Amino acid sequence: MEVIYATVHVKDENMDEFLKVMTELARRSAAEPQCGGYHFVQRADNHNEFAFIEFWPTPDSHEAHCQSQHFKTLFPKMCDLTEEGVQDIISRQLV
Amino acid sequence: MEVIYATVHVKDENMDEFLKVMTELARRSAAEPQCGGYHFVQRADNHNEFAFIEFWPTPDSHEAHCQSQHFKTLFPKMCDLTEEGVQDIISRQLV
Repeated sequence: MEVIYATVHVKDENMDEFLKVMTELARRSAAEPQCGGYHFVQRADNHNEFAFIEFWPTPDSHEAHCQSQHFKTLFPKMCDLTEEGVQDIISRQLV
Repeated sequence: MEVIYATVHVKDENMDEFLKVMTELARRSAAEPQCGGYHFVQRADNHNEFAFIEFWPTPDSHEAHCQSQHFKTLFPKMCDLTEEGVQDIISRQLV
């Protein structure tokens, strides 16, 4: 299982639009048949910091996600609303 | 849902013992009735970096985890095998 911990920083003026776009991207991604889990979270100690925690059972499942219509449409929109784009940490699940 | 992304750095000489202790802690934690998910992962780009991603439905469920026998026994052991202890990022799940 490939596990992605992706973080973004969002300025207050972009917050409403970002939440709208990212909520839709998270819902559609979580609903993908090959998705092992997709969680959109907000840091408790900093409301401008968000993360999305993704679980992809196989490299193919992640690739299919990246090729999906909702990703191609919403991901660039979401990135434009962040300060420095997305910072990814990619890991392998041990347990 | 409270989501915890906790990271640790482990030196090569402590690796085998750390993996043994942390694998047991992860398995027992994931099996707790109130646990919403517990994932122990290793960074793909740095084998000395690990994270455990925890999902706790309520503050009580996390408190019960911290009071469990396996946590009280294994968590301090695990910490002793890391370089700087555990770095926690606590978040709220939005989606």
